[in-house]
Amino acid sequence: MKVNVKNHTMMYPAPAVVASAYDENGNADACTLAFATMCSHHPPAVMIAINTTLKRKTLKSILHSKEFCLAYPSVEHAAEVDYLGIESGYNEDKLAKINFTHQKGEKVNAPIINDFKVSVECKVMHIAEIGSHTQITGEIVNVQADEDVITNNKIDFLKLNPLAYDDITHSYYNTGEKIGDAFKIGLKYKK
Amino acid sequence: MKVNVKNHTMMYPAPAVVASAYDENGNADACTLAFATMCSHHPPAVMIAINTTLKRKTLKSILHSKEFCLAYPSVEHAAEVDYLGIESGYNEDKLAKINFTHQKGEKVNAPIINDFKVSVECKVMHIAEIGSHTQITGEIVNVQADEDVITNNKIDFLKLNPLAYDDITHSYYNTGEKIGDAFKIGLKYKK
Repeated sequence: MKVNVKNHTMMYPAPAVVASAYDENGNADACTLAFATMCSHHPPAVMIAINTTLKRKTLKSILHSKEFCLAYPSVEHAAEVDYLGIESGYNEDKLAKINFTHQKGEKVNAPIINDFKVSVECKVMHIAEIGSHTQITGEIVNVQADEDVITNNKIDFLKLNPLAYDDITHSYYNTGEKIGDAFKIGLKYKK
Repeated sequence: MKVNVKNHTMMYPAPAVVASAYDENGNADACTLAFATMCSHHPPAVMIAINTTLKRKTLKSILHSKEFCLAYPSVEHAAEVDYLGIESGYNEDKLAKINFTHQKGEKVNAPIINDFKVSVECKVMHIAEIGSHTQITGEIVNVQADEDVITNNKIDFLKLNPLAYDDITHSYYNTGEKIGDAFKIGLKYKK
């Protein structure tokens, strides 16, 4: 039986990703986000939403530089990802604190975090303040991935082993086994 | 070593969710989406992006009715979810074809699909055409969940067992084990 539960934003599964940008002094900021999605195929683009209060220094830096990188962390980095979400860049050089290194992206003036295995480089296409958050759509202009998560020239989901986040219970989850092929397993209904 | 891979939109993990709305004749449309995210806490809101070509009848219906429901399917419904993504509502009554039933939401004039265990009811807050897709932000005005996925009045991630989607290899994945508590496992770095 269906029941009403407390109104809360939710997505199942949501990712735990890390956005990074340079501030006006060229220092690297990074923060963890669960509000992130693919949003366009042509051009390839992602949308991230960050609390508008500007308590997150990375938002300020993205709005300033109009470029950012987005990393897709693996489960092995869950503690570092969590730290990047709970500490503020106003208080601490967070990446230095966790001994993560970074370098400028190839196509954008934003830092790529070397320790994460897959990152995209993005140029801001659109900004909108909606509800409590600022939605930033970024065109993906380059993708960098560690060789050890690539199979047949494509990023391998299982090798990357991405981290999922549940905003209701504030928990991180693994991602598991392959269930089936899209555009195939539903064909039995199409006749 | 990092290498550049083909430019493509990506999110790890991305969800496989189902949006539903009534068309101008009151018929229920539903389609599967991987472009979806939480985007605001106050009010609670989600953003979905649908190909702007209007080949997807559900987009037309949402733009007409300005209300929609979003279901978070479980792994057990992977084949039905896939079908709702590959067939068009212009060709077929898709929900009838898979023997799924629906009823009007409590707070919105949009169909809730009874067979999915968790759904949110949404009122459109904002629409933007960006890249190849139309971004629709919806305020969550009600949440309905099956009692059997609820623990301590909250939706239970593991009981829901949500479906993840990989747009690079067109594959569905399970979501697995709990890795840790957010706002806790990173505290070891904060001192």
